[in-house]
Amino acid sequence: GSVDSPRTVTLIPGDGIGPEISNSVQKIFDAADVPINWESVDVTPVKSPDGKFRIPPRAIDSVTKNRIGLKGPLATPVGKGHQSLNLALRKQFNLFANVRPCKTIEGYQTPYTNVDLVTIRENTEGEYSGIEHTIVPGVVQSIKLITEHASLRVCEYAFLYAKQHKREKVTAVHKANIMRLSDGLFLKCAREVAEKYPEIKFEEMYLDTVCLKMVQDPTQFDCLVMPNLYGDILSDLCAGLIGGLGLTPSGNIGENGAAIFEAVHGTAPDIAGQDKANPTALLLSAVMMLKHLQMYDKAERIEKACFETIKNGKVLTGDLGGKSKCSEYTSEICKRIKDSS
Amino acid sequence: GSVDSPRTVTLIPGDGIGPEISNSVQKIFDAADVPINWESVDVTPVKSPDGKFRIPPRAIDSVTKNRIGLKGPLATPVGKGHQSLNLALRKQFNLFANVRPCKTIEGYQTPYTNVDLVTIRENTEGEYSGIEHTIVPGVVQSIKLITEHASLRVCEYAFLYAKQHKREKVTAVHKANIMRLSDGLFLKCAREVAEKYPEIKFEEMYLDTVCLKMVQDPTQFDCLVMPNLYGDILSDLCAGLIGGLGLTPSGNIGENGAAIFEAVHGTAPDIAGQDKANPTALLLSAVMMLKHLQMYDKAERIEKACFETIKNGKVLTGDLGGKSKCSEYTSEICKRIKDSS
Ligand SMILES: CC(C)[C@H](C(=O)O)[C@@H](O)C(=O)O
Ligand SMILES: CC(C)[C@H](C(=O)O)[C@@H](O)C(=O)O
Repeated sequence: GSVDSPRTVTLIPGDGIGPEISNSVQKIFDAADVPINWESVDVTPVKSPDGKFRIPPRAIDSVTKNRIGLKGPLATPVGKGHQSLNLALRKQFNLFANVRPCKTIEGYQTPYTNVDLVTIRENTEGEYSGIEHTIVPGVVQSIKLITEHASLRVCEYAFLYAKQHKREKVTAVHKANIMRLSDGLFLKCAREVAEKYPEIKFEEMYLDTVCLKMVQDPTQFDCLVMPNLYGDILSDLCAGLIGGLGLTPSGNIGENGAAIFEAVHGTAPDIAGQDKANPTALLLSAVMMLKHLQMYDKAERIEKACFETIKNGKVLTGDLGGKSKCSEYTSEICKRIKDSS
Repeated sequence: GSVDSPRTVTLIPGDGIGPEISNSVQKIFDAADVPINWESVDVTPVKSPDGKFRIPPRAIDSVTKNRIGLKGPLATPVGKGHQSLNLALRKQFNLFANVRPCKTIEGYQTPYTNVDLVTIRENTEGEYSGIEHTIVPGVVQSIKLITEHASLRVCEYAFLYAKQHKREKVTAVHKANIMRLSDGLFLKCAREVAEKYPEIKFEEMYLDTVCLKMVQDPTQFDCLVMPNLYGDILSDLCAGLIGGLGLTPSGNIGENGAAIFEAVHGTAPDIAGQDKANPTALLLSAVMMLKHLQMYDKAERIEKACFETIKNGKVLTGDLGGKSKCSEYTSEICKRIKDSS
């Protein structure tokens, strides 16, 4: 389409509180006149002839066509052998980098101030290969798979991201002192890419050391890149520093700009349907999406309205220490967006 | 020997600041009249006929005979293919559980107060199996090995420890949502053991969730048990909450009471030999050793003198924010021990 025609985005509202918070994001995007058409799809798994549950074809077709998705939380089907749908989506669309910016939100008190870092996680292999065997009863192996291809790809992305977002340093996180071959390969790739970006500082650090230093002073970190599991751990740790998964956005990035942005918190079935949910993580993920689509003005207006609402503190959901409903919080953000134009 | 004859303990002073801090511990033990004979051994690796470096036989013989060791930091030989000596010792003596208590130290300011937890880490297998292969150039696998035997053993130890130390809850930390077979087996073992201890609360939690909650409120945790790598990460994270590796003790526990207690910080070559090192981590590890040897009175007197010295704040080493030398800090603790008797 032309530059000005609206972009179609696949919306996966998800389960539990997913529909409410998706609704909130749509309202806020309307208030900001974001030129986006939502194509809403359900990913409740369908049973294939082979008995396994799969993502419905319509959902796959939609993301394949639009190449951009926004996703609420998904419940993993109960019972043995069902892969998490979150993971299935990442694999299906080869979304190789999981990007989680983590920035102190003014007005939300935590022991940490001035946190401003981003974790970039390899999203397709490593400890998430899914290859496991029972050798003999009581003896199990899980295979961690590290490839040069995927390691280079995510490291390239990390340095490119750092450059584009004017970040100064990339830290490669590893345990190559223990997993000499696998993490060693990842590290070799990180070093190789680092050489191509002399303007960006490069450092290497053991995962355990990163965790220790992170809780002591997160401001020493900037951009961090790492294999899959380490990213799973570190991104949650960092989210904890600024207020938890209800406040942190996430993006899964693939080749040629394909991407799914998602709230990584749970479906919160206990409060679903009660207009109590906090839409911030999904909203900030949607803002990340706008930046990814280079709609910087819209992104900044929405982000500002959200942060001001939290800083102001009068209209907040319960988890943020307030008494307001999701709809009230949403309206407050919409109002601030309109007032700012 | 008889109950009253002194116990012989193998002392591995280690490299860098190791000798200074070992000396400090010996002085403090003398001041407290601890009935221990130190058998000091060097573990600087010797080259075997096959070209590999190994722990010297005298060191191995000493630990084998005494079954109890205290160990300073060790430098890992530089160059390819040298296994960490720390790991070699754990494997050599089948020290299957790594225990790291983590307790707020009054007088040392961090954003966290009232931390009082202990991480118990499987110490022999998991991601530390050392089994790795290059499948084709650029494709590497590392094998995470989980056995029922080792999982049951460390979980048994964790519950026994919890019971003996009057702890109320054990949390099994895992990623069985991803590594269904391996972490699944670990979790099954934890559940099995938990059933035998109905008086101790049992909970299961994903590693990423534990990290998030840990930085938000560590007081919700008590005793945590987990596979090797997760313990490596979590124990360092927790150390960060209370002041770092310079303040946290560690014990590696084996069958029939065999154990090596160690300071897990580095060798700090930059300050070695300058009487600047902080002996606290090694001292508190030695105190753990005394409790393990059921010398509770001595343990408590030394611990109290150490904590009071830190709380008082007048005689502290540089890393603790003071200006005193290691020897001055040591003398202050000795003085307090003598005054207390
Ligand atoms: C839901 C779960 C499978 C997932 C993961 O382990 O990657 C989650 O923790 C995440 O970080 O997105
Ligand atoms: C020194 C290193 C091999 C070791 C490990 O990874 O276990 C260390 O981090 C520890 O926790 O004792």
